[in-house]
Amino acid sequence: MGRSLSLADAPIFSKDNYNYKMNTSKQLEYPVHELIDQRWSPRAFQPRELETHQVRSLFEAARWAPSSYNAQPWRYIYALNQSSDAFKPLLECLFPANQLWAKHAGMLILALAKMGFDGKEGINRHAYYDLGAANYALTTQATSMGLHVHQMGGFDQQKARELFNINEDFDPVAMLAVGYKGYPEQLPEKFRALEQPKKDRMRQEEFVTRFMQQPQD
Amino acid sequence: MGRSLSLADAPIFSKDNYNYKMNTSKQLEYPVHELIDQRWSPRAFQPRELETHQVRSLFEAARWAPSSYNAQPWRYIYALNQSSDAFKPLLECLFPANQLWAKHAGMLILALAKMGFDGKEGINRHAYYDLGAANYALTTQATSMGLHVHQMGGFDQQKARELFNINEDFDPVAMLAVGYKGYPEQLPEKFRALEQPKKDRMRQEEFVTRFMQQPQD
Repeated sequence: MGRSLSLADAPIFSKDNYNYKMNTSKQLEYPVHELIDQRWSPRAFQPRELETHQVRSLFEAARWAPSSYNAQPWRYIYALNQSSDAFKPLLECLFPANQLWAKHAGMLILALAKMGFDGKEGINRHAYYDLGAANYALTTQATSMGLHVHQMGGFDQQKARELFNINEDFDPVAMLAVGYKGYPEQLPEKFRALEQPKKDRMRQEEFVTRFMQQPQD
Repeated sequence: MGRSLSLADAPIFSKDNYNYKMNTSKQLEYPVHELIDQRWSPRAFQPRELETHQVRSLFEAARWAPSSYNAQPWRYIYALNQSSDAFKPLLECLFPANQLWAKHAGMLILALAKMGFDGKEGINRHAYYDLGAANYALTTQATSMGLHVHQMGGFDQQKARELFNINEDFDPVAMLAVGYKGYPEQLPEKFRALEQPKKDRMRQEEFVTRFMQQPQD
């Protein structure tokens, strides 16, 4: 059962985008908003440049994410594909299997978590959690602009640390490829069959429990 | 500069919701989608029941979040306010200052991270990160249905562990209050002035760096 709620004006349906048929056949058990339904992580990206206003709106979405003590522990380093001198080092932080397809993305982002607090001892227990939220916000903004995001844990953290002089106060947590979704045919063959929304998710009863207090005797 | 992109049909503007004027005056530097602009964490909730279909759509949004190795490390335990025998123990896991206002929320959720992998040694480095993403997805779904979410780190983890028999494989990471936004006047006085979207965020130049490779000699 269940399809996404109606949102007829979403830019993801704009004719300005390319005419590749969107495969949005998540096996929804219950309806969700279209921006959530449409999100998935492609490998095929079109070699199409991103514009500055898109970049700014992506980070603006991250900027307004909630965070524990409003610590805003997210930090980003990015490069655009059209600036190839800057893009290449970032690309080379990825594991080789990811480089094969990420090289066509319009943008690569390295997402860092600030692990401490300003003027306060100790580790921010929610740094990764808040960064994950901010990156989902960024991804939602991307979807609303007809873009797709593929988040990756598969990169060389140490290489990233060295390249960008990242000290121990920050953890390199994820890299994100952002761009216009392309065509499966452009991918190396081993990736083609993967080029659709992942359907394998736990059912709600596997990860959600309603607490029902037993009556006391 | 910058206001949210248009999304005239969003249910957040539905007349079915109450007529409290939405204060959405984030100081946006760049436009973001309305579902991102509208999100904030109120303390005032109306004592209004949530319906089953809302609960299911909230968790469905979390269900489709991306995760490292598709491990889906999110777990949820929840209670509805209308089931007061179940709601009260969950409420009492919160720090007292949070209980003061969260007692009116329609729903309380305890969000857990599964810290290991199935059939594989080691800790899932992205468990908190992925849970943060799933909870932002849940929150976005809430916004699209005219609901608000207030996420909290301020709760007694040990008490939650005992109450729900949570073993060391799982970390209690956050609690979420979900419901229909209420009126500042209903809050204890010390909370009233806080009852608006937080405006204090870093500017983009403080957390975003564009990598510009220096030409080699």
